[in-house]
Amino acid sequence: MYPLITLTTDFGTHDSYVGIMKGVMLSICPDARLIDNTHHIGPQDINAAALAAQALTPYFPPHTVHLVVVDPGVGSERRPIALETPQGRYVGPDNGVFGLVWQQAREQHPPTQVRAVLLDDPRFWRPEVSATFHGRDMFAPVAAHLASGTALDALGTRIDDLITLPIHAPVFEMPTQVVGRIIYIDHFGNCISNIRAEHLAHLGPIEDLYVFIPDRWLGIVQTYANVPQGAPLALIGSDGYLEVAVRNGNANQSLGIALGTEIRVRRVS
Amino acid sequence: MYPLITLTTDFGTHDSYVGIMKGVMLSICPDARLIDNTHHIGPQDINAAALAAQALTPYFPPHTVHLVVVDPGVGSERRPIALETPQGRYVGPDNGVFGLVWQQAREQHPPTQVRAVLLDDPRFWRPEVSATFHGRDMFAPVAAHLASGTALDALGTRIDDLITLPIHAPVFEMPTQVVGRIIYIDHFGNCISNIRAEHLAHLGPIEDLYVFIPDRWLGIVQTYANVPQGAPLALIGSDGYLEVAVRNGNANQSLGIALGTEIRVRRVS
Amino acid sequence: MYPLITLTTDFGTHDSYVGIMKGVMLSICPDARLIDNTHHIGPQDINAAALAAQALTPYFPPHTVHLVVVDPGVGSERRPIALETPQGRYVGPDNGVFGLVWQQAREQHPPTQVRAVLLDDPRFWRPEVSATFHGRDMFAPVAAHLASGTALDALGTRIDDLITLPIHAPVFEMPTQVVGRIIYIDHFGNCISNIRAEHLAHLGPIEDLYVFIPDRWLGIVQTYANVPQGAPLALIGSDGYLEVAVRNGNANQSLGIALGTEIRVRRVS
Repeated sequence: MYPLITLTTDFGTHDSYVGIMKGVMLSICPDARLIDNTHHIGPQDINAAALAAQALTPYFPPHTVHLVVVDPGVGSERRPIALETPQGRYVGPDNGVFGLVWQQAREQHPPTQVRAVLLDDPRFWRPEVSATFHGRDMFAPVAAHLASGTALDALGTRIDDLITLPIHAPVFEMPTQVVGRIIYIDHFGNCISNIRAEHLAHLGPIEDLYVFIPDRWLGIVQTYANVPQGAPLALIGSDGYLEVAVRNGNANQSLGIALGTEIRVRRVS
Repeated sequence: MYPLITLTTDFGTHDSYVGIMKGVMLSICPDARLIDNTHHIGPQDINAAALAAQALTPYFPPHTVHLVVVDPGVGSERRPIALETPQGRYVGPDNGVFGLVWQQAREQHPPTQVRAVLLDDPRFWRPEVSATFHGRDMFAPVAAHLASGTALDALGTRIDDLITLPIHAPVFEMPTQVVGRIIYIDHFGNCISNIRAEHLAHLGPIEDLYVFIPDRWLGIVQTYANVPQGAPLALIGSDGYLEVAVRNGNANQSLGIALGTEIRVRRVS
Repeated sequence: MYPLITLTTDFGTHDSYVGIMKGVMLSICPDARLIDNTHHIGPQDINAAALAAQALTPYFPPHTVHLVVVDPGVGSERRPIALETPQGRYVGPDNGVFGLVWQQAREQHPPTQVRAVLLDDPRFWRPEVSATFHGRDMFAPVAAHLASGTALDALGTRIDDLITLPIHAPVFEMPTQVVGRIIYIDHFGNCISNIRAEHLAHLGPIEDLYVFIPDRWLGIVQTYANVPQGAPLALIGSDGYLEVAVRNGNANQSLGIALGTEIRVRRVS
């Protein structure tokens, strides 16, 4: 079982910042397998980072260390932290990037199994810590130590008041109507909402539900291939969220849907 | 000899889809070395994916599993498949992305050594298969099982009617003239045609050949450095295809050549 | 201690060129860990490649082989080389991409520990070497041989007249004033100059120094969080260079600073 570390950052791939963090980690934990998730989180987009950490978690072995460096508050009072849940381990800034995994794990597991520490023990950092690149000087070395066997509690003082993001839960306006928002737009232009399959189950059978987006409404289909090329559709995506897409097209560009756009699902029958 | 898996997709690198597939594969085959080829195949560009699979093949050890997920027909009737040839192994959709490696291997090897199966045994998939992300639920796990030692034939039923792409072979209009097309444009703007060195050999000695592109003709040189900075040139590229380039410049932008542009080579002597 | 190879190129990530080089290296040295630094060096931007090689060096173990393929002169007289210093090993073209690591190592170590060879022994190349893709045919195989234990001197003839870049040192116009230039702009739009903390120390205490950029001047702060959101600032970056940034913004776009822009630091007291 190799030490496994995933990387999620907003560093882009033009500079050597990511390479430098990899060098720091391999110097401490030469056996580590480093897995790039993405370095194209929008600059300082904490929400997208939180969704990415949550999205990766169920698919990696629980001993994996997920390093997330989206850190607009570097050098300020924001705390550097590490977390451990039954599903994974995490290192990065306490600014909400771990809000979703923390909340979810707290709901699902006893508190003894969902623990966090403030990284306040400099033995696990680089000897000199810059004011601007904690990814290199603090988070990468701590992730490498964690991956190579250091216990979470050795890394610092236990805390449990992590910063979480305002939960964007959809709202039931009536027993037969729920309103949510687009919370993520992917590379294909698919627009993913915060409405989950479970929410829709409250409304009624899926064939009775209609999705209202600006200027049109849509039934909910099983897969892209259920509509003609270029047609819009709504479906439950591969992670259980309701999404709006265009078959072999780009819903974000062609339907005028953006991050934050309201989406309403209504039972009509 | 580590299990080796390459990844070629049109997923881009902004989302966690690639990371998720990596987690799925490492959960099944923890020893696998995962090699990103590219995730920037144009959305649903099956031709480019087929060229990428063909381009990688000769340079990797034959035990490598090449995972290719460019899958506009996900959720439709298109078949999920795996292939094995003396040069490599492949997993992905049967939509033409393996058309070139399949045809080439069939021409060069006895049929017993070039085999394909329909992925119809769910034991090698994730327990639940979504309608929209077979990369995660079917192709990644099958690639991981193949890499970790499962035999091709265990994965499903033998088939041999794979979908191939219309072959874009160049046409000899006269014994001294061949006409082809630009089939790929790379990051540098180099425009690669479907005319190969072998085709040119039929026309005559290379120094007697001229390449006709819109608005100009070019002799064929050995390398970029044979012409001045910024000058256009034609040469046999590193994979044996005739290409049009601009020294330290971008032929696609400055010569008005695009995907599909005709290119004509004539013997003049 | 695994063989470790980093990759820095201007190949982009759309084509299979990088994947092909990885296949070549893993075929020669199956144990190698391949670490992507960046493939987004600007096409043929030797300066940026030289800065990247220098930036990576201190963070990787000294046995690491840094492969750098930014090679506008491929196929011309430019020499293929490999280097070894107490801090790392390097393979690529002799066009200046190793100018900074070479000069720095020569200043800091005895010449016996800072050695370079011309790659003139074809035993370590691919059997056929194309005129246009030495990354695949010469540099990748040599890097893999070096990583797997071949001694530097076995690879070719010793040389010591490497091409270096014109040193862009800042100039002291007065004992209290230094003028430099922006030499790198990163993904966040931070504008990094060639003025180092050491240069500033000559001018006087940091709180007495002012940084003059077009249309404004700035004091030097410790970190981004010392100024309000959206405000410009100057600071000593994580690698010791003076840089101009905008807190949670893009200095390159909003301050009209570009590569080559002059930046002047003056003691005012």
